[in-house]
Amino acid sequence: MLVHGGDIYRQDVELDFSVNGNPCGMPAGVKEALHRAVDQCWHYPDPETEELRAKLAERLQVSKENLLVGNGASELFPAIVRAIAPRKTVIPVPSFGGYEYAVSARTGDNFYYPLREEKGFALTEEILSVLDDQTELLFLAQPNNPVGNLIGEPLLKLVLDYCLEKGIRVVLDECFLALCPEGEARSFVHRLPAYPNVLVVRAFTKTFAMPGVRLGYVVCSDTELLTRVRRQLAEWNVSIPAQAAGIAALEEKAYLKESVGQIRLWREQLAAGLEALGFQVYFGEANFVFFRWEQELKRGSEQNPVQSYLYRALLERKILIRDCSNYRGLGAGYYRAAVRTKEENGRLLQALQEIVQEIV
Amino acid sequence: MLVHGGDIYRQDVELDFSVNGNPCGMPAGVKEALHRAVDQCWHYPDPETEELRAKLAERLQVSKENLLVGNGASELFPAIVRAIAPRKTVIPVPSFGGYEYAVSARTGDNFYYPLREEKGFALTEEILSVLDDQTELLFLAQPNNPVGNLIGEPLLKLVLDYCLEKGIRVVLDECFLALCPEGEARSFVHRLPAYPNVLVVRAFTKTFAMPGVRLGYVVCSDTELLTRVRRQLAEWNVSIPAQAAGIAALEEKAYLKESVGQIRLWREQLAAGLEALGFQVYFGEANFVFFRWEQELKRGSEQNPVQSYLYRALLERKILIRDCSNYRGLGAGYYRAAVRTKEENGRLLQALQEIVQEIV
Repeated sequence: MLVHGGDIYRQDVELDFSVNGNPCGMPAGVKEALHRAVDQCWHYPDPETEELRAKLAERLQVSKENLLVGNGASELFPAIVRAIAPRKTVIPVPSFGGYEYAVSARTGDNFYYPLREEKGFALTEEILSVLDDQTELLFLAQPNNPVGNLIGEPLLKLVLDYCLEKGIRVVLDECFLALCPEGEARSFVHRLPAYPNVLVVRAFTKTFAMPGVRLGYVVCSDTELLTRVRRQLAEWNVSIPAQAAGIAALEEKAYLKESVGQIRLWREQLAAGLEALGFQVYFGEANFVFFRWEQELKRGSEQNPVQSYLYRALLERKILIRDCSNYRGLGAGYYRAAVRTKEENGRLLQALQEIVQEIV
Repeated sequence: MLVHGGDIYRQDVELDFSVNGNPCGMPAGVKEALHRAVDQCWHYPDPETEELRAKLAERLQVSKENLLVGNGASELFPAIVRAIAPRKTVIPVPSFGGYEYAVSARTGDNFYYPLREEKGFALTEEILSVLDDQTELLFLAQPNNPVGNLIGEPLLKLVLDYCLEKGIRVVLDECFLALCPEGEARSFVHRLPAYPNVLVVRAFTKTFAMPGVRLGYVVCSDTELLTRVRRQLAEWNVSIPAQAAGIAALEEKAYLKESVGQIRLWREQLAAGLEALGFQVYFGEANFVFFRWEQELKRGSEQNPVQSYLYRALLERKILIRDCSNYRGLGAGYYRAAVRTKEENGRLLQALQEIVQEIV
């Protein structure tokens, strides 16, 4: 198993900054839908998720035939990989470990393309040079995780055009995009008709603070490919509570707009607070902040850095952040913290201040 | 997609006999747990389903390392097939279409061994003769579906011993066993330590009338194999509502005992009623009844039987049964009806009587 954040089940945690949900919490309408769904659970769920797809299609302005729903985005990544069965897959790193989890569950050549720290771990045109004739699949995250930076539209178009021409399929992970400033407007979904090689993966999980019910989806204009992806999923893969929650979430337009505004504000406060404490904060726009602690590396030797000191010191205070030392392409001293409410972020900054002062 | 029963989403149905849940309905404790779980859904579920596995291990008297939980049994079948990657799989038919769905999602040789109608579609020793050197996986259902018959213990042991000796892995599907008379006592789970080649698949879905939340599990003494099966599942595959419902269901011991008694009684009444109307009822002990309508075949020509007349006539009355004509190994005239309450079964029998009288 890959190590992810959010292990509140085997640790004593009061404040979890290690997973990146919407800090505004689950909308009341979604909660009500979950309660109402309980009495429906003696039925099987609709394996075709028809009502949810119809509502989602209307919202995204696509056809429901271009939509496939999964038990979380994490169910969709491996299903897509199995359906495409790529000879070679390229994954820029550091990025979400789930892509590697998906591709390494089967045989196939996987190339982990290192994003450069001096470029802020941003994607550049250089990626084109590693997309060789063997490459049949590329993973891109918009925004990327753990850094939280977005690929600018000209570069994104350049890469996707190149992939279209070369017959390379692209998984474009927009799971965190809706919570970025103007996120909905920046989605690639409306351009998919011209890009049958692109599969956009999105999730209700993060956007509506409901990871516990598992709900993600993929949008693609290649319906034949979507049929093959569906074939790689279990028959009744999306539960009745999840379908009901998704249908209710689509009504929450004010909630989403308000969330984006709040997160932007709280993000700026958190990032400024971290910088004031001496952490190096990387540029990003997502609902999480990626930072580095030089001090941590200095405390150990190069051969044996004091890995994850900050992580452990916070955990002693029952605060969980994401220690990014196990990300491919990173090492000790890198951390990610979700943007939470002003008060919660304040508690994190206070704890960090204490830790920093202790060791200086 | 395979056609299954239970499509209440695209049909106007008041009484659904096409899926086989526990007719006693979802236990109150499970409903309460589902309501309580709503406020937890802003967390990720535990990917290791640790609390549920611990409670289940205690109940089944196995180690929790021998348990793996899935988003319904239907998620586990294809994951098992991918983990084993058998050169050749043998599936006795007619049986649950999900096995074929699982094996045909990948390349591999699949042999569908026809169970003989003159033996009541019961498994016999003859199965051994088709387990050749290429065979690496065998599916067995205990009880089988749609017939509802059980494999007697001596024959089951004979087949599993043979498979153990030949290095053939066996998926033993016990999803409906807990609802059969003395079902728990007849489970193969307690014999698994001596059979590392056997994977017993069970489900909360049917036993506790909660198919909408999706929850199944596999028990196996080969923990290395289970790890490989886990690798074929999504990381957070079991939702928080499903884990909570499962934990609550394990407390429902009186409910299960009472259900078994009721189903036995209601089954006998339903089977007797069907026979009185002239249907041929096959021997079975499960919470569903498998029967044949000779009349239907007689109404059409052999080249063009009036397929599914009974199914359509019932649907006009908003009653859904399982038309088994699309089961591999069956044809027109075969049906399956779930055992429901005395009153509901009475409504089915009344409708059938009207249909039969109309055409005689």
